[in-house]
Amino acid sequence: MHSFHYKGNTLYCEEVEVQAIVEEYGTPLYIYSYNAIIDHFLKLKNAFRKVSPLICYSVKANSNLSILKIMVGKGAGLDIVSGGELLRAKLVNCSPEKIVYASVGKTEKEIKEAIKFGIFMFNVESVPELEKINVISQRLKKIACVALRINPQVHPKTHKYITTAKKETKFGMDIKTARKIFLNSSHYKYLRIIGIHIHIGSQITTATPFLKAIKKVIPLIRELRKRRFPINYFNIGGGMGIVYYKENFQSASAFAQKVIPLLKTTGLKVILEPGRFIVGNAGILVTKVLYIKDTVYKRFVVVDSAMNDLIRPALYEAYHEIIPLNRSHKVTKSQSHKLVDVVGPVCESGDFLGKGRKLNVKEGDYLAILGAGAYGFSMSSNYNSRPRAAEVLIKGRKCYLIRKRETYKDLVDKEIIVKI
Amino acid sequence: MHSFHYKGNTLYCEEVEVQAIVEEYGTPLYIYSYNAIIDHFLKLKNAFRKVSPLICYSVKANSNLSILKIMVGKGAGLDIVSGGELLRAKLVNCSPEKIVYASVGKTEKEIKEAIKFGIFMFNVESVPELEKINVISQRLKKIACVALRINPQVHPKTHKYITTAKKETKFGMDIKTARKIFLNSSHYKYLRIIGIHIHIGSQITTATPFLKAIKKVIPLIRELRKRRFPINYFNIGGGMGIVYYKENFQSASAFAQKVIPLLKTTGLKVILEPGRFIVGNAGILVTKVLYIKDTVYKRFVVVDSAMNDLIRPALYEAYHEIIPLNRSHKVTKSQSHKLVDVVGPVCESGDFLGKGRKLNVKEGDYLAILGAGAYGFSMSSNYNSRPRAAEVLIKGRKCYLIRKRETYKDLVDKEIIVKI
Repeated sequence: MHSFHYKGNTLYCEEVEVQAIVEEYGTPLYIYSYNAIIDHFLKLKNAFRKVSPLICYSVKANSNLSILKIMVGKGAGLDIVSGGELLRAKLVNCSPEKIVYASVGKTEKEIKEAIKFGIFMFNVESVPELEKINVISQRLKKIACVALRINPQVHPKTHKYITTAKKETKFGMDIKTARKIFLNSSHYKYLRIIGIHIHIGSQITTATPFLKAIKKVIPLIRELRKRRFPINYFNIGGGMGIVYYKENFQSASAFAQKVIPLLKTTGLKVILEPGRFIVGNAGILVTKVLYIKDTVYKRFVVVDSAMNDLIRPALYEAYHEIIPLNRSHKVTKSQSHKLVDVVGPVCESGDFLGKGRKLNVKEGDYLAILGAGAYGFSMSSNYNSRPRAAEVLIKGRKCYLIRKRETYKDLVDKEIIVKI
Repeated sequence: MHSFHYKGNTLYCEEVEVQAIVEEYGTPLYIYSYNAIIDHFLKLKNAFRKVSPLICYSVKANSNLSILKIMVGKGAGLDIVSGGELLRAKLVNCSPEKIVYASVGKTEKEIKEAIKFGIFMFNVESVPELEKINVISQRLKKIACVALRINPQVHPKTHKYITTAKKETKFGMDIKTARKIFLNSSHYKYLRIIGIHIHIGSQITTATPFLKAIKKVIPLIRELRKRRFPINYFNIGGGMGIVYYKENFQSASAFAQKVIPLLKTTGLKVILEPGRFIVGNAGILVTKVLYIKDTVYKRFVVVDSAMNDLIRPALYEAYHEIIPLNRSHKVTKSQSHKLVDVVGPVCESGDFLGKGRKLNVKEGDYLAILGAGAYGFSMSSNYNSRPRAAEVLIKGRKCYLIRKRETYKDLVDKEIIVKI
């Protein structure tokens, strides 16, 4: 099911014409499909039903409260990485027992709040962090559950910035260190070390690196279980890729079929942390064409969205498909070799949304940037003093505003003009 | 003069101990030196005194209202790129006649507001934009002044994202197009085309590409003046680089000496648009060490600032010097070949502030990331639901809070939990 589709030449999100939405809410505008989110979640849940995992949605991918509320409503837990995300989890009434918390840099305050709230588990990334959680638990007279995040030292083929399991990355610990911690676990009186966590990266479209990583930690899991360490959970993280353009398509079930047999051998309860897989293709960013700028070398389609709205093209050299809301103007043969760059108003050459695209548009037309549901709004900024976009959610024929557009006033609200 | 300096082993900003500031305001914290800002501004002003240019500070580099107020108080104009920046200019009572407005994607609303406010000049980047400004001026029954931004097609050696004058970039127009516009200027009844604008990029540390660019447009200027076109202004943009690390140091006066003779030959009034040059080295980002994480391969110093606070290392592979607030722990010989990576808590490998640094620090220590005054806070985001940092300004012994730290509540203030 693709929730963004043409009826005739007109783009729809579910049963609503996208142009009607942007005429009401303006551009740049993030639009999400409720049914796409649910569909992706259920596909994953269904694919893994044989191991009935705890699925903790990765808040950082898209942290809008309404989206979190939907996930929680469907029984998902939340994978958080900061105190801010913990607040979000609280605001949508996520059950504490379904919250897992990863990050190499949890602060004391954050750890304290999470223990007090009674979260399910910390994914611990280093020995000093483990010590800190133990000390804080002792102070609070509470027992904290933790999983050790192991860096399995595999190299998934994805962008270097979202590769998280090479030996030189900051994440997790090596197997030896994890083993030592388990053997020494009586030292951590206020901790229950009950799980193993891995997370090898993001936007990975084959099962192979996952299988490799899982295989690397299985011997440790077997040893620990043999020695009767109370280890119950195997969190294999997130990172399942989606199709932005020409990526290999891997369905949830194809992925599950490959990893489930291995997971079953461990006898552990499985935890998954999907983010992009659920929301990535459930959202678009809609933008208006401001100018068609022709130079001797190139045609530029200047739009009203920029790198501050969607930084993935600049930061990860990410490819996002760009399609018109109205496709009645076909790209003719004579135009098809005149490829255009779609660029924003920000004063940097890095401010582009797509390069070398086949598009036949004119001033005032609208374009949809696809695959913008994950790491879109959540990474947006006010660079160039640009207020951040609004977000709306579509379900069937209904449209809900889930985040108001920022105003100029919001930009300066925290600032103070001092007289010197 | 360097406003950030050690007294003994303790880092000071002007006359205030930096650690005392962060103990009051917390971390991550942006700290700016008033005197450094003024010093850089006056150096530039003085270097160019023979041509007494209009210096329009580039708001996007650091758009904090107090900093803009300082610049305006010293007689500077402002170089803006959006409606949000226009609001900032209004809030600090910048005289409209000192505002220049550049951007490839000015919206109708932004153009209208700028004309109504009576800004000095638009830097126009394309023919359709020129047409639009003309139409809007007509509607408002006002005359707008414009400069044509020419892309001189030179290639300064800087990061590809901040190179703005190669033929394949979206900025400006070629000389032929500009010439045609002038010849056809009677068509634009509501415009006065009174200037030429160039801006070749950012963080450029030699005069050579500037000289090349200026030389490229001088023949056009001569021709236009000969033909008695009322062209009065030559805006050579910004882009003067600073020393982050091992860059070639070029003083304002050395730069001025090279370009002034050429500028004088044009007979035009000069406009400059410095940003980084003024604020870049006038600001630091202070962060706290959360964990020292040793792996077999590397030592990671995990700090409480991240790519959401300062994206330059991830986005531009930018180098920022990192120094301790207290340097009493020397790096011993045995440590000096154990180089550390300074990384943040964000869950991406791209989240680093510096790699391979000589640092001897422990948990709880503070570090200053230098050269963070430009494109630091102004590019910051809430990624990973991290509230944005506070900003303070130091003058002599005094410390002023110029932007309050964001709270968790601020993160979700615009969001709406809908019941579906």
